[in-house]
Amino acid sequence: MNEMSAKPAGAPLERRIVRVDLADRSYNILIHQGLIDEAGAEIAARMPGVRLAVVSDETVAGLHLERLSLSLKAAGIEHVPVIVPAGEGTKSYDGLIRVVEAVIEARLERGDAVLALGGGVVGDLAGFAAAVTRRGMGFIQMPTSLLAQVDSSVGGKTGINSPQGKNLVGAFHQPALVLADTALLDTLSPREFAAGYAEVVKYGLIDRPDFFEWLDANRQSVFAGGTARTEAIALSCEAKAAVVAADEHEGGVRALLNLGHTFGHALEKFAAYDTARLVHGEGVAIGMALAHRYSATEGLCPEGDVARVEAHLKACGLPTRIQDIPGNAPSVEALMQAISQDKKVARGKLTFILTRGIGRAFIARDVDAGHIANFLSTELAA
Amino acid sequence: MNEMSAKPAGAPLERRIVRVDLADRSYNILIHQGLIDEAGAEIAARMPGVRLAVVSDETVAGLHLERLSLSLKAAGIEHVPVIVPAGEGTKSYDGLIRVVEAVIEARLERGDAVLALGGGVVGDLAGFAAAVTRRGMGFIQMPTSLLAQVDSSVGGKTGINSPQGKNLVGAFHQPALVLADTALLDTLSPREFAAGYAEVVKYGLIDRPDFFEWLDANRQSVFAGGTARTEAIALSCEAKAAVVAADEHEGGVRALLNLGHTFGHALEKFAAYDTARLVHGEGVAIGMALAHRYSATEGLCPEGDVARVEAHLKACGLPTRIQDIPGNAPSVEALMQAISQDKKVARGKLTFILTRGIGRAFIARDVDAGHIANFLSTELAA
Ligand SMILES: NC(=O)c1ccc[n+]([C@@H]2O[C@H](COP(=O)([O-])OP(=O)(O)OC[C@H]3O[C@@H](n4cnc5c(N)ncnc54)[C@H](O)[C@@H]3O)[C@@H](O)[C@H]2O)c1
Ligand SMILES: NC(=O)c1ccc[n+]([C@@H]2O[C@H](COP(=O)([O-])OP(=O)(O)OC[C@H]3O[C@@H](n4cnc5c(N)ncnc54)[C@H](O)[C@@H]3O)[C@@H](O)[C@H]2O)c1
Ligand SMILES: [Zn+2]
Ligand SMILES: [Zn+2]
Repeated sequence: MNEMSAKPAGAPLERRIVRVDLADRSYNILIHQGLIDEAGAEIAARMPGVRLAVVSDETVAGLHLERLSLSLKAAGIEHVPVIVPAGEGTKSYDGLIRVVEAVIEARLERGDAVLALGGGVVGDLAGFAAAVTRRGMGFIQMPTSLLAQVDSSVGGKTGINSPQGKNLVGAFHQPALVLADTALLDTLSPREFAAGYAEVVKYGLIDRPDFFEWLDANRQSVFAGGTARTEAIALSCEAKAAVVAADEHEGGVRALLNLGHTFGHALEKFAAYDTARLVHGEGVAIGMALAHRYSATEGLCPEGDVARVEAHLKACGLPTRIQDIPGNAPSVEALMQAISQDKKVARGKLTFILTRGIGRAFIARDVDAGHIANFLSTELAA
Repeated sequence: MNEMSAKPAGAPLERRIVRVDLADRSYNILIHQGLIDEAGAEIAARMPGVRLAVVSDETVAGLHLERLSLSLKAAGIEHVPVIVPAGEGTKSYDGLIRVVEAVIEARLERGDAVLALGGGVVGDLAGFAAAVTRRGMGFIQMPTSLLAQVDSSVGGKTGINSPQGKNLVGAFHQPALVLADTALLDTLSPREFAAGYAEVVKYGLIDRPDFFEWLDANRQSVFAGGTARTEAIALSCEAKAAVVAADEHEGGVRALLNLGHTFGHALEKFAAYDTARLVHGEGVAIGMALAHRYSATEGLCPEGDVARVEAHLKACGLPTRIQDIPGNAPSVEALMQAISQDKKVARGKLTFILTRGIGRAFIARDVDAGHIANFLSTELAA
């Protein structure tokens, strides 16, 4: 497997660096335990004289901001905290205005930077604020959820939600640096950790069968923390970085990252984005299971692979069936409507990420909406 | 003079095309009278199947939207109007949200486009909305004020104002096409025309002495309209396009475009952005006169050039002295505070665009704040 053998023999597993290759916007992702204490030094070495607005949510700030602040102070980096409420509701116009105005108020210039300390919500919001304040400021990601460390902090998508739909307003704005301290995940709830892990498995399922094998063998160590976790995060970042480098603005292969997401988004919408019922990664887990089962009914994916994927997700405590969502079940019609809103429907044909087996996902641009509807009624009747 | 001789001999002056050279973001500016009636055909030829949100302000929409709409319809281009109030107040968070939500509501996709029909306010606002809706949609400029045709529609700066200051929130987002119908300027107020003309003269004063000579000889024809106006607009666009191509994101030479603007912005701020007292181009006219006079007091610029610049601006009906602003005069302190807010002050040194004579402007990074203050008190006492 390419990305595993690319690691220099004998290098300690504990400290990993992944390069995101984007010409003059290339950057490094540093990954290891305890990195938060070195954040100041790492930033000062790369951006001498930079001043920072540190955006975080109330939960994460309460847990980790003081340590970051000490590290920044030790490196002589001036910074102001900008604390927003935790939760998806903060990725809104109001949240954006609040962060932008705080950054201007702090008199930061274009050469200064916004640092996001938090999960995907804080990263998306702070990154978008950095993209539009003074027509573009520096940006540093310090992801604190597993989902943010393996997915949202890599690739430069930033944004907020519109009342009309999720992530409809935003910008591509690459960070200058990503600092992923894997030990910060120790304070994450087991449910959020598992949800983020769904995106880790996703990379294996898309095109890295060896990574899936490795996860299947090392799942418990990854959940336990330590070296295996750092390794899983680094391999995930490499997988995402490779796709992003090939297709920065999502014109082609980047769509593969949506494996499980068309179904997943429809389920999140059905659950009215009530995270007590379903968080994003759980929707993705169900969506990936559905994508594999649908691919099997279409004769594309071996049944044995479907069973392995389902067993792996279940072992992680992740849901795999629509009925696993607590509360009432959706109708086929409601799901189909959500699916066709998520994707442009051209003459009854949908674009889905389907698969020929573990690590063999592909973009299918002509999926028959009728087939999907039939499949979903079978699923819901089961 | 380069840009004048570059025009192929014998080509009709009436239709001009200026290319903005920005690698894969290059685009054309089409400039001629009556272009609005060909807008549909020009757009359809370049962006087949595109659908449009046409953003305009109430004033411009009342005058010109129907004609544009007919042209779009004739070319089979689906479009929805998005009308905002006229005036700088529309370049706000509320204005942005209104346009973005209307574009999403119209179910436009990333391949569709936002078209700005209006002055710089509409262009900046609509361009920013295009930059952030669905992380970046197509954008077409159809500037209707002289300022917009020669300045704001070229170069990709888009944005809105923050309560803390002008243009503090925005993005670089280049248009795919600029359509400047010079006949639309016939409905512009003479005062707005003259204000926009200040930016035309600016290009001559920066580094195109031959253009200044030509304007000095043809000023009346330019104001009258017709071929000379089209020519002046095309040469201005060429001048701006050259600077933008050399420095897209304002790291260097693009700062030259700020000739007259540091003083001008301070005066606009002093007049509380009350356009009854001072519009932007008038502030720039006074600012350019001040920059020349200050350069003369520093022994940089010949007095004869100062006199020519002042005479030219006055002949256009533009102000040249701070005292030309109706109402009370500002204090030196108020102006100096506004100037140091506009520019980063490093140890009492300011960055200004100064000049060694007509067409010989340069970036001066170490202007003594005390010298400027002395100069301003002499000006105000005169
Ligand atoms: N930009 C992208 O490419 C991209 C990709 C995927 C997802 N996303 C976005 O990411 C968001 C979801 O990210 P998320 O799951 O991280 O959500 P989140 O940021 O809301 O974090 C989830 C919860 O965990 C808490 N938390 C985070 N780190 C913690 C820690 N170390 N200890 C204790 N609690 C912690 C947060 O306060 C929050 O309550 C969504 O808005 C989604 O749209 C973006
Ligand atoms: N993006 C840039 O690079 C850039 C450069 C310079 C200025 N600007 C911005 O441009 C704005 C000023 O532009 P402006 O002077 O065009 O202001 P504007 O858009 O407010 O237009 C001035 C007035 O003229 C009216 N108008 C416009 N076209 C007309 C027409 N053909 N007939 C009759 N009335 C017409 C408008 O309704 C408005 O009332 C400012 O917000 C400034 O910050 C941007
Ligand atoms: Zn996801
Ligand atoms: Zn100007």
